Amino acid sequence: MHDVVSPRLGIATVCLSGTLDDKLAAVAEAGFDGVEIFENDLVVSPWSPKQVRDRCAELGLSIDLYQPFRDFEAVAPDVLAANLRRAEHKFDVMEQLGVDTMLVCSSVSPDTVDDDLAAEQLHLLASRAARRGLRIAYEALAWGRFVDTYDHSWRIVRRAGHPALGLCLDSFHVLSKGSDPAGIRVIPADKLFFLQLADAPRLRMDMLQWSRHHRLFPCQGGFDLVGFVDHVLATGYAGPLSLEVFNDVFRQANPHHTAVDAMRSLLVLRERLAVDGSPAVRERVRVPGLPPAPAAAGYTHVEVATPAAAELADTLRAMGFHRSDDTWVQGRARIRLRGTDVTSRIAAFGVDSADPAVAARRAARLLAPIRPDGTIRAPDGTAITFGEAPAPAEPGLLTGIDHISLTAPFDDVDQTALFYRSVLGLEAEPAAEFAAPFGLVRSLSASDPTGRVRIAHNVALLRRGEWAPAVPDPQHIAFTTDDAIEAASTMRANGAPLLDIPDNYYDDLDARLAPPRLDELRENSVLYDRDRHGELLHFSTRILGGRVFFEVVQRIGAYVGYGAGNSPVRMAAHRGQRERPQ
Amino acid sequence: MHDVVSPRLGIATVCLSGTLDDKLAAVAEAGFDGVEIFENDLVVSPWSPKQVRDRCAELGLSIDLYQPFRDFEAVAPDVLAANLRRAEHKFDVMEQLGVDTMLVCSSVSPDTVDDDLAAEQLHLLASRAARRGLRIAYEALAWGRFVDTYDHSWRIVRRAGHPALGLCLDSFHVLSKGSDPAGIRVIPADKLFFLQLADAPRLRMDMLQWSRHHRLFPCQGGFDLVGFVDHVLATGYAGPLSLEVFNDVFRQANPHHTAVDAMRSLLVLRERLAVDGSPAVRERVRVPGLPPAPAAAGYTHVEVATPAAAELADTLRAMGFHRSDDTWVQGRARIRLRGTDVTSRIAAFGVDSADPAVAARRAARLLAPIRPDGTIRAPDGTAITFGEAPAPAEPGLLTGIDHISLTAPFDDVDQTALFYRSVLGLEAEPAAEFAAPFGLVRSLSASDPTGRVRIAHNVALLRRGEWAPAVPDPQHIAFTTDDAIEAASTMRANGAPLLDIPDNYYDDLDARLAPPRLDELRENSVLYDRDRHGELLHFSTRILGGRVFFEVVQRIGAYVGYGAGNSPVRMAAHRGQRERPQ
Repeated sequence: MHDVVSPRLGIATVCLSGTLDDKLAAVAEAGFDGVEIFENDLVVSPWSPKQVRDRCAELGLSIDLYQPFRDFEAVAPDVLAANLRRAEHKFDVMEQLGVDTMLVCSSVSPDTVDDDLAAEQLHLLASRAARRGLRIAYEALAWGRFVDTYDHSWRIVRRAGHPALGLCLDSFHVLSKGSDPAGIRVIPADKLFFLQLADAPRLRMDMLQWSRHHRLFPCQGGFDLVGFVDHVLATGYAGPLSLEVFNDVFRQANPHHTAVDAMRSLLVLRERLAVDGSPAVRERVRVPGLPPAPAAAGYTHVEVATPAAAELADTLRAMGFHRSDDTWVQGRARIRLRGTDVTSRIAAFGVDSADPAVAARRAARLLAPIRPDGTIRAPDGTAITFGEAPAPAEPGLLTGIDHISLTAPFDDVDQTALFYRSVLGLEAEPAAEFAAPFGLVRSLSASDPTGRVRIAHNVALLRRGEWAPAVPDPQHIAFTTDDAIEAASTMRANGAPLLDIPDNYYDDLDARLAPPRLDELRENSVLYDRDRHGELLHFSTRILGGRVFFEVVQRIGAYVGYGAGNSPVRMAAHRGQRERPQ
Repeated sequence: MHDVVSPRLGIATVCLSGTLDDKLAAVAEAGFDGVEIFENDLVVSPWSPKQVRDRCAELGLSIDLYQPFRDFEAVAPDVLAANLRRAEHKFDVMEQLGVDTMLVCSSVSPDTVDDDLAAEQLHLLASRAARRGLRIAYEALAWGRFVDTYDHSWRIVRRAGHPALGLCLDSFHVLSKGSDPAGIRVIPADKLFFLQLADAPRLRMDMLQWSRHHRLFPCQGGFDLVGFVDHVLATGYAGPLSLEVFNDVFRQANPHHTAVDAMRSLLVLRERLAVDGSPAVRERVRVPGLPPAPAAAGYTHVEVATPAAAELADTLRAMGFHRSDDTWVQGRARIRLRGTDVTSRIAAFGVDSADPAVAARRAARLLAPIRPDGTIRAPDGTAITFGEAPAPAEPGLLTGIDHISLTAPFDDVDQTALFYRSVLGLEAEPAAEFAAPFGLVRSLSASDPTGRVRIAHNVALLRRGEWAPAVPDPQHIAFTTDDAIEAASTMRANGAPLLDIPDNYYDDLDARLAPPRLDELRENSVLYDRDRHGELLHFSTRILGGRVFFEVVQRIGAYVGYGAGNSPVRMAAHRGQRERPQ
């Protein structure tokens, strides 16, 4: 076996919030090898370039790129003179910083016109750079005035033919345009000067706004970063994998959290590439010490912290649970209650893992914070353990746990979702967005391959609940049943505090879907949905202890999803009975 | 003079946050005449349709429209049968609600194909409706499958030729597509069944997402609502002007605030229409009791509430102000300080008005909250008075006030901006967005026609400052000078706590703009900007009392704007001196 050198990992300072000193500290702490210095971060800094260089050295960070230099090429002679003057000023800065590569973006100026002139002027710029031992990485912006694809930028670089002129490839600019990245494979590695990585959700909007506000770290969005990076590494490119992500949220979030999130995204990207990449690439990108997620068979238990333990216990009893030691059991469902002074929340859950020790090792390698008691702390505060489930109890009305639904601030949901998916080995399911009575809610979910560990995250866009007496950030545990109508009827008879659904809902359901057994659904306040694969019957308890409720779901056929379309009626009903007029 | 009947004003329940009872209460309180009932608001409500009807009657609200009914027309026979069944169910609901008009949106179903079939099936639907005394308003969605323009919907309605079938026009669907609304003038008024109004910022993005998330109330966005409504009213349309605004913020803001904001937008729209509309329209829309904004000659004073009054007083003295009674004066600038226990803020300002009594009457008519002491309270909390400025003091280094810069939560900025513009008679200036060290900031500003009352609002997108030790929501007062370099030099010599700007800024400025007197700018920490019309020199003090600072600006030529491009360096510097490495 030959020596394998892992790729160096970098990040642009523009990805993070704060002043340059905040950013460099966060980048180093998260374990990156290098940084791209975003010009404006330097311009506003009280540190001289030399001081920045010293600080990076002290932190063990290389400075890999100085960026961006804009609107240089294919201009009239007087503009060229001004641009070269501007470039020489920046070369001065680069020398003081000790960085050898400058990013030049394709021009967005309306004056720019001609390939030959672009090649000629970039050749001139590269010659000036080479005199000082510097080099130029030319990048096609997706909204460049006439150079807006990577293959066009490559034609110009080839035509210019200067050894100090090469390409910078940015996954956003290539993939947002729908360019075929396979053409990258034919570019010689020594002309690929730099690689910038960004993912993004698939949005249909202005390219510039999309890029400036909505980029995400790899594996958080909708782009095929695995395929893209594979093409680049297949050329033999040996430079850094460097993140350049413009994101409104990351720009103002704690940079220490963002940097860890960024590093995790690169580990996940490398893991996927080590499975799906070309043979020559796989070995290079493998993350040492990162085992695959062991198979999960479900939940060992879910723990609710609540100020209303008696009420929850009564509810569980009315739903058919029995107490065994400190756990309420029914079929495969196991619920623990523990007291707290604040509102109820899902405080912890355990995953029934085929190999708990390996699962924990994986979590640690993916930078999951480990608590002193050995549990893992998810970004939303939930504690996670890995273990082996005891033998199931006798099933009754309920057979097990279908899913748990957690909450996260909207700003944090991309990193929270990636955390759960990567640490537990889950796959993302299609997202849903719906208009709840007090604002929009986005529902993300992920599931293990067998559907035994399903986790939903419901996030309120913006600042839901500021004015409204709504239930803030409700969480729930959903149990499975084979007969929702029977379960609802029996539980209600046993005194379970089930939620009443208004008649208007059933009138509309009749008009829309005309479901079977409509009268029984109405009678028992059971909600109904249908998709191409099957049906869903589900009902809920009232909110218990201020925030948590239980749901019961019956999946018929291969129904996909969680009945998100019914969430607004459930949320309005949860707001509670209001006095009726007259 | 003949009797003039003002148009009735309505709003769709979907514009507001809350449950149906919350919404109806807010709508009635803001003085609307009627509502559109958005179906989902009814479906999730515990109130029966009859109860909703009674509640509206009690509140003095008419129910003007039931909406929306989707994907009806031009379908296969079996789908038609299901659609008619669905419609009859909804007609039942409408009869109980006591509403006679149903909105039918053009279909987005891929099955829809043919104009003739659409006309035929809509004719059938209208016949069914007419049997019950109901009628159908057909609306072209901007993203309809094949009917996506108002003229196309009009061709179909005309072809169907049923008296119970007419058009619903929605300004968003017409103006977002860039359709020429002039063609509306030829549609007979008796075929215009309903008019929905929404403004929106000019965004280049997916039409559906734009419509569902980013609509605004009239005069808050970039559409020509005045021209649009003029075309509609010119036909003789006598139905309500009804707002239908889908907006993520409004969906979760206090509905009582939103409803007032909505009503103000309609008053402003009517005022503009009364000036710029067709002769036949003007008189109908005029808002009784709303006088035009009297001319403003500047600020009578600006009041800062501060826990650091001594520090602010020392600073004003070092900047050349003299104390006269309770006011610090220099030229036309007049500053009052008053104590507070919390951080500094611009608590109040007075507008030097040509007719203070009329200005106050205008504010009241535009629903501005009046405090017990007669001052007006802006949505951002600032108190406003109208008065007459005393004779100016002797000018020194400073000659007057250039602008004040206030802050508002991002969620509130559209309504805050409309409040200032309408109440004070200001015009919006181009908005700027820049990347501050701790997140993006959007800067909106407005000015009276002579540039004597300029007000900027800087708003942090998302939740700036949650992690960062940045200055939260800084506000400032900007004074005018004829010589910024001289002023900075003298003030600094006098001990004014001016802000130091890092060398990197001047190195970059040299590379970019090579300004005259660069060394003096650098020496005195004076910022510089240039546009096509002129130049700006400006400098700031440090933050005083936790939040407020003073700025000094010198406008050369006809420079437009406020030097927003320099804000990041100022904001980074305001964060304060940090220890340098080594």
